[in-house]
Amino acid sequence: MMKFNAATLTFVLVCYATSIAQTNPKTVIEDFKPSTLNQPGKEYPQVNSQGYARFKIVAPAADSVRVSLGLGGRGGTKLQKVEDGSWMGTTEGPMDEGFHYYHVDVDGGTFNDPGALNFYGSTRWESGIEIPAHDQEFYALKDVPHGKVEQILFPSKSTNTSRRAFVYTPPGYDKDPSKKYPVLYLQHGWGEDETAWSNQGRANLIMDNLIAEGKIDPFLIVMTYGMTNEIKFGGLRNFDISPFQTVLVDELIPYIDANYRTVADKSHRAIAGLSMGGMETKMITLNKPDVFSYYGLLSGGTYSPEDIKEGADVKLIFLSSGSKERPEAVKSAAAALNEAGINAVSYVSEGTAHEFQTWRRSLHELAPLLFK
Amino acid sequence: MMKFNAATLTFVLVCYATSIAQTNPKTVIEDFKPSTLNQPGKEYPQVNSQGYARFKIVAPAADSVRVSLGLGGRGGTKLQKVEDGSWMGTTEGPMDEGFHYYHVDVDGGTFNDPGALNFYGSTRWESGIEIPAHDQEFYALKDVPHGKVEQILFPSKSTNTSRRAFVYTPPGYDKDPSKKYPVLYLQHGWGEDETAWSNQGRANLIMDNLIAEGKIDPFLIVMTYGMTNEIKFGGLRNFDISPFQTVLVDELIPYIDANYRTVADKSHRAIAGLSMGGMETKMITLNKPDVFSYYGLLSGGTYSPEDIKEGADVKLIFLSSGSKERPEAVKSAAAALNEAGINAVSYVSEGTAHEFQTWRRSLHELAPLLFK
Repeated sequence: MMKFNAATLTFVLVCYATSIAQTNPKTVIEDFKPSTLNQPGKEYPQVNSQGYARFKIVAPAADSVRVSLGLGGRGGTKLQKVEDGSWMGTTEGPMDEGFHYYHVDVDGGTFNDPGALNFYGSTRWESGIEIPAHDQEFYALKDVPHGKVEQILFPSKSTNTSRRAFVYTPPGYDKDPSKKYPVLYLQHGWGEDETAWSNQGRANLIMDNLIAEGKIDPFLIVMTYGMTNEIKFGGLRNFDISPFQTVLVDELIPYIDANYRTVADKSHRAIAGLSMGGMETKMITLNKPDVFSYYGLLSGGTYSPEDIKEGADVKLIFLSSGSKERPEAVKSAAAALNEAGINAVSYVSEGTAHEFQTWRRSLHELAPLLFK
Repeated sequence: MMKFNAATLTFVLVCYATSIAQTNPKTVIEDFKPSTLNQPGKEYPQVNSQGYARFKIVAPAADSVRVSLGLGGRGGTKLQKVEDGSWMGTTEGPMDEGFHYYHVDVDGGTFNDPGALNFYGSTRWESGIEIPAHDQEFYALKDVPHGKVEQILFPSKSTNTSRRAFVYTPPGYDKDPSKKYPVLYLQHGWGEDETAWSNQGRANLIMDNLIAEGKIDPFLIVMTYGMTNEIKFGGLRNFDISPFQTVLVDELIPYIDANYRTVADKSHRAIAGLSMGGMETKMITLNKPDVFSYYGLLSGGTYSPEDIKEGADVKLIFLSSGSKERPEAVKSAAAALNEAGINAVSYVSEGTAHEFQTWRRSLHELAPLLFK
């Protein structure tokens, strides 16, 4: 049996400290700045150059304040009361690059951070924070020509209401009344809605920048609500795609083709979705093989060669994943599809999980492959 | 000196009770329904047919929860803890019809109601609640052709960025490429931003409905940020209109005229604003008499005949107020303008104060008077 002495104990403690340091570096650089997604004039939340997030919540008489964002697990970040009646805390380590949802627990109630802008996710308007990414230029607001994000209200007989969609039209859309455009129908994930791809995803800025760089030919993007949020996790077995499929295929697409200058045929129509929107994409493309030619599943499953009907004329299947999800699944699925003679591309977003940075990057990779 | 006896005392108490009852009827009708501005699927806040609002906030370990909305004063409505760990309360009396901002105080911190949608006001994203109004049909979502609300990003050299504006285009705008439209520039108030007129004001639905009823000829509405929110109340003496005037007159208007099919002259251009946006409207129209022909101040002050320069060719001055503000001021100002040979119209919104129901109604009254 090993005998402990002072030297051994020091060695053990140093090893322990080193092990902690590898995951939680103790040297937090004090260059925190307000998150770019803060409400106007708000100092907190803040982020530093390492990707740590720091929160400050005013609640002088509260007993406990916790922020849902943090490293692994469900614990989030517990804030400590400071002198002025506010609560402060910093994540234990750097967060992944890009956008994160979070909320604040105040004495057992779920609220938003009054300093942050709100984004619809988890079937509620959540707080959002932006961790600067090494590749953030591709979705930055730049001094280039900008397209529009148009809110439309389209008639839906099947749901007996006017439904909302957003349509990205590229710069110059209004200039040449003879030009017609292909269309990408782009779906959000569970808990989100038709605002997600513009607000969290910055789809319009990604397109503006790609067009300005001459990397893509302009196309329209249409974003509407996928009617996914009544579904509870685990309840997918009973999910019925038909109500949304009717809205999309029988109501929205004809409305878009009637009211925008589209090339209204299958070979100029794409559909993609993230997470549960990928599942919807797969269901709809398999049910309706004559509507779309380009399919994209962003962290949203895979197709197998057997899924694709003989003669379906699929021009592209795009499968993506964050490296912290199941990257091998999209790679092997794309390989199998290619082997079967179906044009498939996989993309893995390095260092990201099931979050919007994965999907921003996925759109950035997908867009140049469409309508070729 | 009057001698009290039992009868007198009873009389006095009855009078007192009656007087209370006139402002605070004790019979609250239990027909509460979720506010139409709730987040999807949220049961609270609720409103009843009398205009009472009822709140339920979950915060099991809180010591005090208060909602800022309530009758008069700054007290708002104090919630009481109920069995399930949530806090509930009902306003002491009916609220005015229409839209109200509010927030929740939890143990001294300011948060939003997790049940309600958020609206930008008071320089923060606030909770919003809708008290059904007797005239709510004019801003309801109906089965009529709908225009679009287009988010644009326009270049602004003076502020060295791309700035956001929203453009309402009427139904049919995309159908006839030869048709040109007049434009109303419509400003929000202090603490608000370019989202206010669509979100809180429902300007697009007001227009859609007026057009469907044949009450107006279609025109565009342009809404951008008035750069008002750096101004503290009481600091108006130092308010400099020139930065916003430059953005509006030298950058946004030329951009709109270059990118939309407008009739790009003074007699087809109007400007109106609510509250502080009215003050901006007045300053800009007086500084730049050659840009707009129609002026609207909605709860935003008045013009006197001396304000209007000789030969300024003002086609209309529209002045409005809630009946709970200073209705006499807009009436007498309009009378004085008419006396001086200037076409002026005043409008008073019955039963409303310095809130969005006054401004929804004001837009509904103003629109048919424009561009005649």
